[in-house]
Formats: sequence, C-alpha cells, structure tokens
Amino acid sequence: MTYFNIDKVNYEGPKSNNVFSFKYYNPEEKVGDKTMAEHLRFGVAYWHTFTADLSDPFGVGTAERDWDNLSDMDKAKARVDAIFEFMEKTRIDYFCFHDIDIAPEGATLKESNENLDIIVDLIKEKMDQTGKKLLWNTTNNFTHERFVHGAATSSNAEVFAYAAAKVKKSLEIAKKLGAENFVFWGGREGYESLLNTDMKLELDNLANFLKLAKSYAEEIGYTGQFLIEPKPKEPTTHQYDTDVATSHAFLQKYDLDKTFKFNIEANHATLAGHTFQHELRYARDNDLLGSVDANQGHPLLGWDTDEFPTDVYDTTLAMYEILKNGGLNPGGLNFDAKPRRTSFKQEDLILTHIAGMDTFALGLKVAHKMIEDNFFENIVDEKYKSFAEGIGKKIVEGNTSFKELEEYAFNINEIDNTSDRLEVIKAQMNQYILNINNGD
Amino acid sequence: MTYFNIDKVNYEGPKSNNVFSFKYYNPEEKVGDKTMAEHLRFGVAYWHTFTADLSDPFGVGTAERDWDNLSDMDKAKARVDAIFEFMEKTRIDYFCFHDIDIAPEGATLKESNENLDIIVDLIKEKMDQTGKKLLWNTTNNFTHERFVHGAATSSNAEVFAYAAAKVKKSLEIAKKLGAENFVFWGGREGYESLLNTDMKLELDNLANFLKLAKSYAEEIGYTGQFLIEPKPKEPTTHQYDTDVATSHAFLQKYDLDKTFKFNIEANHATLAGHTFQHELRYARDNDLLGSVDANQGHPLLGWDTDEFPTDVYDTTLAMYEILKNGGLNPGGLNFDAKPRRTSFKQEDLILTHIAGMDTFALGLKVAHKMIEDNFFENIVDEKYKSFAEGIGKKIVEGNTSFKELEEYAFNINEIDNTSDRLEVIKAQMNQYILNINNGD
Amino acid sequence: MTYFNIDKVNYEGPKSNNVFSFKYYNPEEKVGDKTMAEHLRFGVAYWHTFTADLSDPFGVGTAERDWDNLSDMDKAKARVDAIFEFMEKTRIDYFCFHDIDIAPEGATLKESNENLDIIVDLIKEKMDQTGKKLLWNTTNNFTHERFVHGAATSSNAEVFAYAAAKVKKSLEIAKKLGAENFVFWGGREGYESLLNTDMKLELDNLANFLKLAKSYAEEIGYTGQFLIEPKPKEPTTHQYDTDVATSHAFLQKYDLDKTFKFNIEANHATLAGHTFQHELRYARDNDLLGSVDANQGHPLLGWDTDEFPTDVYDTTLAMYEILKNGGLNPGGLNFDAKPRRTSFKQEDLILTHIAGMDTFALGLKVAHKMIEDNFFENIVDEKYKSFAEGIGKKIVEGNTSFKELEEYAFNINEIDNTSDRLEVIKAQMNQYILNINNGD
Amino acid sequence: MTYFNIDKVNYEGPKSNNVFSFKYYNPEEKVGDKTMAEHLRFGVAYWHTFTADLSDPFGVGTAERDWDNLSDMDKAKARVDAIFEFMEKTRIDYFCFHDIDIAPEGATLKESNENLDIIVDLIKEKMDQTGKKLLWNTTNNFTHERFVHGAATSSNAEVFAYAAAKVKKSLEIAKKLGAENFVFWGGREGYESLLNTDMKLELDNLANFLKLAKSYAEEIGYTGQFLIEPKPKEPTTHQYDTDVATSHAFLQKYDLDKTFKFNIEANHATLAGHTFQHELRYARDNDLLGSVDANQGHPLLGWDTDEFPTDVYDTTLAMYEILKNGGLNPGGLNFDAKPRRTSFKQEDLILTHIAGMDTFALGLKVAHKMIEDNFFENIVDEKYKSFAEGIGKKIVEGNTSFKELEEYAFNINEIDNTSDRLEVIKAQMNQYILNINNGD
Repeated sequence: MTYFNIDKVNYEGPKSNNVFSFKYYNPEEKVGDKTMAEHLRFGVAYWHTFTADLSDPFGVGTAERDWDNLSDMDKAKARVDAIFEFMEKTRIDYFCFHDIDIAPEGATLKESNENLDIIVDLIKEKMDQTGKKLLWNTTNNFTHERFVHGAATSSNAEVFAYAAAKVKKSLEIAKKLGAENFVFWGGREGYESLLNTDMKLELDNLANFLKLAKSYAEEIGYTGQFLIEPKPKEPTTHQYDTDVATSHAFLQKYDLDKTFKFNIEANHATLAGHTFQHELRYARDNDLLGSVDANQGHPLLGWDTDEFPTDVYDTTLAMYEILKNGGLNPGGLNFDAKPRRTSFKQEDLILTHIAGMDTFALGLKVAHKMIEDNFFENIVDEKYKSFAEGIGKKIVEGNTSFKELEEYAFNINEIDNTSDRLEVIKAQMNQYILNINNGD
Repeated sequence: MTYFNIDKVNYEGPKSNNVFSFKYYNPEEKVGDKTMAEHLRFGVAYWHTFTADLSDPFGVGTAERDWDNLSDMDKAKARVDAIFEFMEKTRIDYFCFHDIDIAPEGATLKESNENLDIIVDLIKEKMDQTGKKLLWNTTNNFTHERFVHGAATSSNAEVFAYAAAKVKKSLEIAKKLGAENFVFWGGREGYESLLNTDMKLELDNLANFLKLAKSYAEEIGYTGQFLIEPKPKEPTTHQYDTDVATSHAFLQKYDLDKTFKFNIEANHATLAGHTFQHELRYARDNDLLGSVDANQGHPLLGWDTDEFPTDVYDTTLAMYEILKNGGLNPGGLNFDAKPRRTSFKQEDLILTHIAGMDTFALGLKVAHKMIEDNFFENIVDEKYKSFAEGIGKKIVEGNTSFKELEEYAFNINEIDNTSDRLEVIKAQMNQYILNINNGD
Repeated sequence: MTYFNIDKVNYEGPKSNNVFSFKYYNPEEKVGDKTMAEHLRFGVAYWHTFTADLSDPFGVGTAERDWDNLSDMDKAKARVDAIFEFMEKTRIDYFCFHDIDIAPEGATLKESNENLDIIVDLIKEKMDQTGKKLLWNTTNNFTHERFVHGAATSSNAEVFAYAAAKVKKSLEIAKKLGAENFVFWGGREGYESLLNTDMKLELDNLANFLKLAKSYAEEIGYTGQFLIEPKPKEPTTHQYDTDVATSHAFLQKYDLDKTFKFNIEANHATLAGHTFQHELRYARDNDLLGSVDANQGHPLLGWDTDEFPTDVYDTTLAMYEILKNGGLNPGGLNFDAKPRRTSFKQEDLILTHIAGMDTFALGLKVAHKMIEDNFFENIVDEKYKSFAEGIGKKIVEGNTSFKELEEYAFNINEIDNTSDRLEVIKAQMNQYILNINNGD
Repeated sequence: MTYFNIDKVNYEGPKSNNVFSFKYYNPEEKVGDKTMAEHLRFGVAYWHTFTADLSDPFGVGTAERDWDNLSDMDKAKARVDAIFEFMEKTRIDYFCFHDIDIAPEGATLKESNENLDIIVDLIKEKMDQTGKKLLWNTTNNFTHERFVHGAATSSNAEVFAYAAAKVKKSLEIAKKLGAENFVFWGGREGYESLLNTDMKLELDNLANFLKLAKSYAEEIGYTGQFLIEPKPKEPTTHQYDTDVATSHAFLQKYDLDKTFKFNIEANHATLAGHTFQHELRYARDNDLLGSVDANQGHPLLGWDTDEFPTDVYDTTLAMYEILKNGGLNPGGLNFDAKPRRTSFKQEDLILTHIAGMDTFALGLKVAHKMIEDNFFENIVDEKYKSFAEGIGKKIVEGNTSFKELEEYAFNINEIDNTSDRLEVIKAQMNQYILNINNGD
C-alpha cells in the first residue's frame, strides 16, 4: 500500500512553483566540507506526524489519515509502513518516538511490552532494509491517568516504579535499534501548586530516577547520548526542567552534568522567556548542546504551538550556534512540529516538512556564509579587544585584585565606550539573507 | 527640622480608621517565641524612599520633597536626617542603600569617595545615636552612562576596573557601618542581543568579579552575608541573574555556592514567570535564602512596578517560607517598593510603608497559625506517605534498581492515586486569613 | 440511584472544619434587602461538571464518574439525574449547558435533534419537579471537526448553514425550558492567521448570523436576554469577540448593541490583559452587563485554566460592580470552572463548588459593606469634585470651547493636584475583608 | 555648522558594504505606478531623534549630541538646523513633533507659547527653503507633572483646561506649518487602578475634549486629518485607547468615527496582543487607516522598546495592507523608533534610519510583487468561493433565514472542508522575499 501519492521530493531550486519540491534543501549539496544532509540530520517525529489527530482543548481531531479506522495493532503496523515511506519520499534520514507512539498500551505492563516487541521488530527490519536511523526514543510518562501527579516526581511510589519499568523497556529498545540519543521530557515532572508539594523530595527522586536510568543503560551496554528536554510550564504550572540554565543547576547539584546534555526546543525557549538562540548558546557555552527539537512558537500565544519552522531569522541564528558547536552529531534536528489543525490532509504532512526543511536549509546556508566571513566573530573581537591585553588580560586571567583595579580606576581620565550599532548588524543580516540566493 | 509632621506610628488594631496607625503590625507583640519586629526585620530602601523622584519613562518626577531644592551635598545630608526621623516614626529598624543614593558622585572617583566619606560618617553617628542598623548596602553600577555595556560584564576592561573600585569602597562602608549583608544586583549585567555578545567571556568575568569582591572582604575582615539579587529582564533584554535557579547554576559552575546566598524580590519572581513563593522555596530548599526585597508587581504589566505589598495571600505564603527557613536573620524584609507616581506627597512615604508592614504582619500571623496547626505539613505527609516505607523508602534512599522497580511494577494490580483537592486547600487558607482577627 | 453520598450542604460558619459545609454562603441570609441566593444567582455548568473528563493537551481524562461506562444515551440520562441531585445538595438554583453537553450528537442533524428532544423532555420534567431553572443555554459550534474553519465565520457556506440549524434548535430548547438568557461564545469565530483570512467577510457573516438568530427568536416568541461571551485567543490565534470593548465596537457597527449584552468571564478578562473588574465596569458603564462566568485564571499561565474562584479580592470587586449594576438578574453567576485534573474524584465536584460559592459569598458581604459605607464613592466624589462646579461643570456639560479653556488656563497660577493614595485604599480594603467575619 | 559628517545617503544596492548607503531604498525607483518615496512617505520623529537622551528607568542618557551643552533656546534652534540637515542627508521628506520637542516649556503657558512661536517661525522658514513637510504634529500632555492624573481625563478640571490650551496652540501650529495630519496619543489618558477611578466620567470628558479640538480646527480652517494613536498600557496600567478595536468602540459611541482615523504603531499592536498586520487590517476594513508609526517591539519584553524596524516579514505584511489601502496619503510612515541605548553616537541616528528605510523598501517591493501576482487574493478567493453562489450568496446578502438554513443543513450529506495549508503559504512568502533581489 502507498500512503503518499507523490514522487520522492526533489530539489528544484528557489524559483520552483511545485509545492512538492525543495526550494533550498538539496541533500547532497556541499556547504563547507559537509553535505546539507550531514549538517542538518533531520528527524521526523512519530507522534506529531503519525499518531496525532490534531485535536485541541476545544475540538476533536481533524486529521484525515488512511489508518484511522484500523484496529490498534493494525494501525501500529500501518504507521510503521507509512513512516518509512514518508522518510523515503522526504529524504529524511532519522526518526524519533515515544514508546506509546509506536505500539498500543495493553491492559498490563507485560502486554504493553509485548506489543512493543512486535512493532520494534518490524521497525528494525525496515531500518535494516532502508538504512534509516533512530535519532532518539523516549518514554511517554505523562499521558496516562496514572501519571496525574507526575512520574519520577509522583507523590505515589508505585507510579515511580511503573515509570521506571517503562523507561527500562525504552532503554532496551534504544539499544536494539541503535538509538543515537535517549531523551527525557518531564511532561508531568513539576507542580500545579506549591501548597501541596514537597519540591525537595520530588527533585531528589527525579535525580535518583535519572541515575538509575543511566546505571541500567551501562548495565546493558547502551551508549547513546542522554538528553534532558527543558520546558517551563504546560502541562504543569511549573515544570522542573524549566529551561537550560535551571536544568543545568539541577544537573550540577546532583552531579549529573557530565552524563546528560540537552535537547533544546525552540517553542519551549520562547515560552520560558528566552530566544531559541539563547538556549542554544547557553548549552553550547557549557558543552551541553546535544540535540534540537526544531519548531517555532507564536509570539502572541501562551502555549506550545509546535509550528513548523518558517522564520529564516530563527533558523539562521540556530544554525550559527549549531555550526559553532561543531554540529549536533550524534544529535540532530527533529521536527517536533505539527501541521495546524486546519492543515489536516495526509499530504500536509509532506508539505509541512518541506517548509521546515527548506527554512533550515536556508538558515544553514546563510549562517555558513556569515561564519566564512567571520561576520559575528569580527564584531565580537573588536568589541572585547580591551580584554586581550593590559588590565583586561589580567581580569580574564583572574590575576588582579580590587586594590590594583582601584588604583587603575583612579588613573582613568575618561571612559570611552563605543557604539554597539545593533541596528546595523540586523540590517547586514538582512543583506546576508537576501543575497544568499545569488550564491554570494 | 522635622520632615514628617506626624507622631510616631502606633498600633491601634484592625478597626482603626486612623491612616497613620498600624492595624496589624504591633512590633513588640509575640508571635510564637519572637516579637513581630524580630520576625520581620523590616528595612527601608534609601533609593525609593529618599532619592527617587517618581518619574517614569513618559514623565518627569512628581515627588514633592522638602529637600528638592537643596544643593547636592546639602540634599544628601538632609536625607540622612529624614531617613532616621522616618525610621523612628515608622518603627523600622533597618535601612539599605546603594553608594550613589547617599552621596552625590563627584567629577572623579576620588571625589565621589570623599563625598561618601562625609555622609557615611554622618550616618554612623546617627546609627550610634538611634540604634538603627544597616541591613545591607550595595553598589550602583548601572545608572551612569559608563555602564552602558555592563559593569563586571562590560565589553570595556576599564569599566570593569571602575566598577571594582566602586564595590571596593562599598565593602569598606559595609565594614564601617556593620552592614549585616552585602548585595549584588546586576542592573546592567546581561545583554541586549546575542548578535554582538560574548556571553561566555562576560559570565567568566562576572564570576571573577565576585571572587575578587569576596577576597577583598576577607582581606579587610568584613564578614557580612553576600547576596545575589536575581531579575530576568529590564534594563537589559536578558539579565544574567535571571532567577534563583539560573543564578544557582552560575554559582555552582564557578564554585561560589558556598559563599553567596540570594536576596529575593517578589516582583522579580513574577517577571521571571514564577510565584514569589517559588523563588523563596527554591532558595530555602537549597539553603540559599538570604534576604527579601518585599514588594509586589502587577500581574498584567510586563515591567517592574515595585508596588508596596498589599496582597495578604502573597505575604502569608512568603512568611510561611521564611518561618520554615528559621527566619531570615541576618537578612530581613527590605521594602524595595515605591509609592505610585500618583502618591507623590511626602506623607505618602509613611502611609505606603504602613500598608506594607501591616500586610506582612498579617501574613506572619496567618502563616504562624498555619504552621502551629501543621496545616501544610499534614497535607504533604499524607500525600507522600508511600515514600515512608517499602519500595518508596528504597527509592528515596537510592537503594533500588530499574530491575527491581520493573519487577515491582509487574505486580501492581491497579494504581490508586488520591485527589489533591487543591481547591479545598485554597478555601481553607481563606478561612485562616478571615479568622486571624479573632485570635484563632 | 445516588451520585453524591453526602447530605445537603449546610451553612456552618467560618470556624467549621467540615469540608462539606458552607463557611460563608448562607442562602437565606439577608445582605441588604435581598438574600444571598437572590444576589448571587449561582449556576452550575453542565460541561465542566458533568461532561468533562479532565483531560488536557498532554494527558487523557482523570475524572472518575459513576456514568463513565454507560452507553451514550444512558450516560446522558444519568447526567440529568446527577445534575439535579447535585443542585439539590449544593443549593444551586440554576444550570447552563451547550446542546452537545446534554445529548450525544447523532449520525445526522436530525438524529442529533431527536436525541436532544428526549433529554430536554427529561430535563423539563426535573425542572418542574424541583423548581431549578435554566440560567442559559448555548450551542457548541466549535468541537466537531466540521467547525475547523469556524461556524458563522467559516469559509464554507455549508458550515454556516449547519451552525445556524444548530442554534435554531437551541433557541427552541431555550424557549421550551424558559432559559433566562441565551449565550453565544464564538469558540472558532476568529482566525489562525491573516495570511489566508478575509476578516471583513467573516465579520459581516457573523453579524448576519446573530441577526438571523435574533429574528428567529422573535418569530418563536423566545424573549430571553441575548449574550455575547468575549475571549481574546484560544482556540484560534485571534478570537473576534476579543474583549468587551472590541465586541462593543462590533455590536455598534452592526447595530446590535441594543439587542445583545455580555456574559463576562474572569479568566477571559485576564487572558485579554484586563482585570475581571475592568470588563465588568466597561460593560456596566455601557449598560451591557448581562451575566457572569465565575472562575479565575492563573496569572502566570497563558491559557484558560478555568479555576474555581478562591481569591476574595477578585470576588469582592466583582460583587461591587454587580451590586452597583443593580444585580445581574436575569443573568447570574455561572461557575464556568473545572476541578484541577488532580481533583478527579466525584465528590470534588461538590467541594470545588463550595469553595467558589463561599468565596463569592464573602465577596458579596465585603462589597455590600463597602457600598453601605460609600467607601469607593467617597473617594471618587472627593477626587473629581472640580467637575461639580465652575469650569469643570462646563466641561462635563460640553458647554465650553478651546478659547474659553485657554483663557482659563492662562489665569491658572499653579496647578495643585492631590495624592491618589492608592496604597491606603488597598490597605483599607484589607481591613474590610479581615473585619467582615465580625459582623462589622 | 554641520551635524552629520557624511555625504547625502545614496542607493548602492544590495551588495554594498557601505553602512552609509541604502541597499534597498531607492527613492526615485518606480514600484508599480509610484516611486518608492511616494509609496513610503517616510517621516522622522523629532523626539526620538533630536530630543531623546537614551535614558531608561535604570540609567541616565547615553546619547552624545552636539547640542548637549547649549542653553534651552539655543538647543532648540540647533535641533531645527540638525533635523533639516538630517532630512536632506537621509532623503526623508517628512517630520513629526510634539510641542515640547521643538521648544522648551516656559514658566507660564504664555511663555511656552512664545518659545513655540520663535521656533515655529524658524521651522517654517526651513520648510520653505527645503520643501520638507510636516507629516503631523501633536501635543505632549503627559510628561509634565501636572498631568499626573491624566490630561483630558484628569480628575482635576484645571488640568483639562491646561491640556486644551496646549492642543489649541498645537492646532494653530498645524495650520501654520500645513501639517497633513494631527495626532492624539493619550499618554496619561487611562487609569492606574479602578479603585479610585470614575471611568465613565473620564471617557465622557475625553470625548468632549476631542470634539472641542475638532470644533476649534474647523473654526480656524485647519483641515488636516485627525488621528488617534492606540496603546494598551504604559505609562498607565490601562490606557483608554487600548487598541484599534477598543478605540473604534469609543469613536462610535461618541459619534466621532467619521472625523477621526488611526495612527497605528507596530510596537503598540504587539503590546496589545495583536500583530501589527491585525491592527492595520482592522483599520483598513473599517476605512480608518490613517498613518503608521513604524517601529518594532521585542516579542519577549513587556514594554515599548520602539526599535527600528528590521524584520522583513513585518514590513512586507504592513506594506501589503498599506498598498491594499491605496496607500497612506495624507498619512505616512513615521519612524517612532529610537536607537538602542548602546547606539549612542550621533551618526547612529543616520544608521538606524537607513536600517528602517531599507527594511520598509524591501517590504514594499515584496508586497507589491505579491499583489501583482494576486498571491493572497487567489488564496482567499479559492477559500471563500462557496459564498459566491447559492446558499452562500444568500448568506452574504442577508437574504435567508434560520428556517431555510436548517432545511439546507438537513440535506447536507457530508461537509467537505479543505486544508488551509498555512505552512505552504509561509514557505512561499519566504520564496517571495528571497527572490526579490533578482528582480522577480
């Protein structure tokens, strides 16, 4: 059976009117010393693309999918076929999933695991046939009602145990399928109100949970990269993994900062009051940038809209951080994005990914050109040049004292600051974007 | 000269119509084993109360003050008189200031220091006469144009030196006046845009700055508590000391978490997307709660409004955290709050402080009663009881494994969660507040 | 069958520890010349209380309800029994519903209508038996996937027709059950993006829709009050009925401002960036205050949380506006509020309503006392006294000119403004709240 | 004297590295049937560019200006020279000012008016010499402390009179200088709290004020377009002219909607929770789009940042609305924008305007191309085609009834909605932007 009645999506360049073509993403085209595909390492998200029904809090699902009327296990199998066809046609090399995305939960944990085994075998077979790879998998410990008070931070010890058993199984799947990363998103790890919450106990438990997970991974020889995905609020009022810095505090406190990195999502960044670039930069500066959930939020809305990325400013700055990080490998750019509820046709799954891939391809090309020109680097070098010598060098090297600095300050005649000219930098960034089509 | 034409403010109880009386704050009244004054340790902020002119970005100052037309040094001296009269009349025992609040900046750093010396001597004399104490002082490294690009995080090494010299002087003042704490608020320590910012260098410099400060304090034998005051944005787009958790990450990274605690401001908490209680709780859980800037923000406005606290829900929950912390000593409750621009009379300085003090006194009484009844403690004990024994105890003690937890999970028949009944808790909190007048 | 294993909820006063008692709401107690029940006119919302499952965008329903496992029509019938038992036990006199809350949609519109007829008859019978009344009903034209692009503002004319047919049926139900009001909430009447929206056409259509509805009501002799319920965003990015003022512009433009009033929801107010009181005041000032959806939002969250009201400041100010409006009759206070997802037991439905009713009863008592004392009225009279005579009177009466005003201004020596003392007003409001228990 | 040591700014095209050149703005280049200059009608804002000192709530001004050390009247005269030189060099044809921007306030109203007379004569002379024109002027009734409680909505009738006298003078200046528009921004027309506000009286007074202004304009034969500038909050908590729709309600209520249009500011739109495009569209749909304050806000900050526009998405959509409006004439694009506090050099005034002008020129070219292609028009025509015939046509014409619609609905078999494909539209917009350089 064929799920997408289109040919494999081809690169047709910026002038193409064919909505089923790439205008900017050309997988084998070299940008610097790597191909676009090697730079971007795109992943498709099982949940948004093959499981979600596009419901929202005020309406039922609108998605029209070929597998809508199948029974649970048949639906699960159809989705495996569909995602591999989808990856083939969109030229996406990676995919990501939660345990419950790929197989239905059973009446018992054992039954759930048996369902998983069947589907994981099917996926393995397809991976072997196609060469497609698992960017990461994760465990959904938030949808089921048992997680009403959290999973690793539940007030109920039985729920902690259940959540642990589910992550154990997910780690075994990660090993079997060669997942390059393993992700923790704490969908219910937070609180609704402090009035009835023992935050300290909950965070201690969360740290214990992560340590047990790492320990089990070592036991079974799973060596993928471990990633925390921060988000500030929603579904709980306060999510513990609020943003990268908050989670960095947590990792340091519990001595986990050498074993975990971050999976950073654009929309979670803005919900936390930060730019996407800020979260990437913070992680990069601390050697904690692991992988990216590529999407965008709506600046005027207060919830996670998970839109496909179409803003070339954002993708340029994201790719700048990623290139400066030496790439994301073994991480990648997973489209944690869903079509709008009004884009409910099956073909919209293809069209939305093309939009996202093209925007990131553009961002890659612009960022690469800017780095080639040392555009930001020159600005920063000039701006901070006073720290390259004299008292500035001593400050940087921690090789001075308040007494010496006071002495120095007493002798300053007039402080001469320079203009930062931020507006010019932004205007020049527009030039870089507008000129990229011309091969400049 | 007399600045406030009123008698010393007396406690007259909840039925009083006298706006110049306390309705709830009764300094010598015992609440538990301490007096209200000992619990609350109120401080007056020099800047909002004696220096600010109530201007805003769209209008000049409206404040009418007796010292408005004096020359700079005379004004500085008048303010010293005024603040001590103010403390006497409002029964506030502590005060706080930035260097430039108390004395005008001179043409040179030396001249500024000389001005400071004159006023500090005057203050010392008044302190000795009255027994009033310095809760904390700090350095204003943000108002002057030299700090346009930051102070400790300026891109200009000369500015770092200048800022260091100013903090050095402030530490000397702290020692001389016996400041119980010393505060760092990074008013320009952040960035406007990442496009031209070397965040890593700036944060390294900030850490160096704080270490040099601590080292100089040790050198001169100043032993007050060192405090960081977090704020997320304003004046810069991103302030480095964003919130308590972010700053905790910073302190840990640079090995400063044993030598610095936090001065937490209510309005900064809400600007960061947290409740006031959350910031207090996070700090308390990590033994980092040092002092409090008591005010409140407007939930619908996106900037720091620094209102006097009048919301008894907030002060009750704040006092709950403070009491559970064993109090704030050597910290205190500094009113980092200003009258509205429309409350511009000199007597409004008194009236606004009465409003804030009464609201915190109410909060203290309610919180103390709730703790006496183990109100929140009973809720939490019941909620988390599964961690007191069996598998829960093993989890808490880190004494289990994913294998054991899976085995346990396989044997769970049905998970039975209990209702959190948050609405009942809130309704009961209303009862506590409404019943407090009756001595219940 | 009994759904709630408790006795009828009694008033036990502010000291009661019985969670199933009223502490402040005493239905027959007179406040001024009306009983509390007459003032407050509480309504229960069918959807939140009897239909909702407490799911959220990240998790399935947690609600445990006796009717969970019944077939659709049996479930519908059980809910009728349950809501009338609920009203009896909570002493709530009114209820509200959407068409699809009370009866399942059928395969066709005709079948849906037949289902409605069966349940409406049942409800009518219960109403006759118990004396309980329908505060308002409305039509759910947002949940079904056919409304993906809107209802009255859909881009598809067939959907407009379908939506009209559903409102027609709802109006007939309103007439049959004597609904005192009829509500329009435009759950999908808005846009996701202007890039593909003809806003002008959509708004013209919306106005036409409302006119046709009004016209049909007249045709069948239904005389209930017509109400628009504003909300700014969610589910769409921009909801046309954004807030009261925006909707007022719409009503005026299309000449509907004499035939429609507003149903104002607290949480929608804050999502729109206004206080609840602001929306009530705007409506009251324009004689447009029809009814109230009583709930509260979380000031730090960007979506509709529909919490039960527990903040006595908000209920006091809401009741102040309502009392000054001469009450809400024929409108009322409908609890458009849901238990938290963590308050999932059936008894929580009772407990949450008690919390909301008590908080509004408190608000009523405090507001009534403040009005008795002319508290706000005295403040306002004093503040604006210059408009009661002289040039001020001329201004108010529109009886002056710029020339006269300039002449007047030339002769002003110094303008003497007075302090607004907002902080004192807030402190005095605390006194009113805290003293209310004592009968003051 | 020369204030800007640069040559007249020339168009050098998209590849130019000269920061003092235009890359996209080419004033005489035809876009459609008008030149860029005729389309864009750029204006410079006296206040941000020649008066502001770049202070913020936490710091003094950083601006370095040649006229900083002159006395008040000399400064005023120097600024006149400077702005005309500035307009010459930047090729900007229009300017805008508040009364107090151009001349210092005197000790009395009469003295202020005399100062204005001197400077207005100077400006008139320069206008005659250069052909530069006054886009609009306005009255600053918000900075001075007399306006602490508002101007037209002050609680003090004397302030109303004073404000009226100032607007009277401004109207006389408008007539003398041939201002093409006259603007009202209600900087203090709003409230801090409803607790002490008579909103109804204040709005009645505001309406009276506007009527008196219009009446005086007619009396003196001033025929410029009258404009209201909406803003939601800041400096007051609630500004009465919240957004376009709210102000539309006000204008309709007081029968002013035929005599006033709107001056729409991008940053005010986003502060109100709307996109810039939304505000423009709403105004255009209601024939109320008068003029534009061109700037941009920071999506993560809660106050008016007044940045120079550099986002080409925003300027494209703004220019789309403006072109569909038939242009703005007699309105224009006034740069109500200021350099960042860190861009404090005098030459930054030029550089920031170049950034804004180029971004709007780009937006113009892209929008014009999209309109030429009927890009959005085709999308909308296809989407709403069901309203062009049959039942849809009847709906649009108001020529149906609920009975007919129900009959129609009963006969619908299945409703077939189409996908909105918003993501494809956004991707295609990227193509339009990226391809514009190539003359496509």
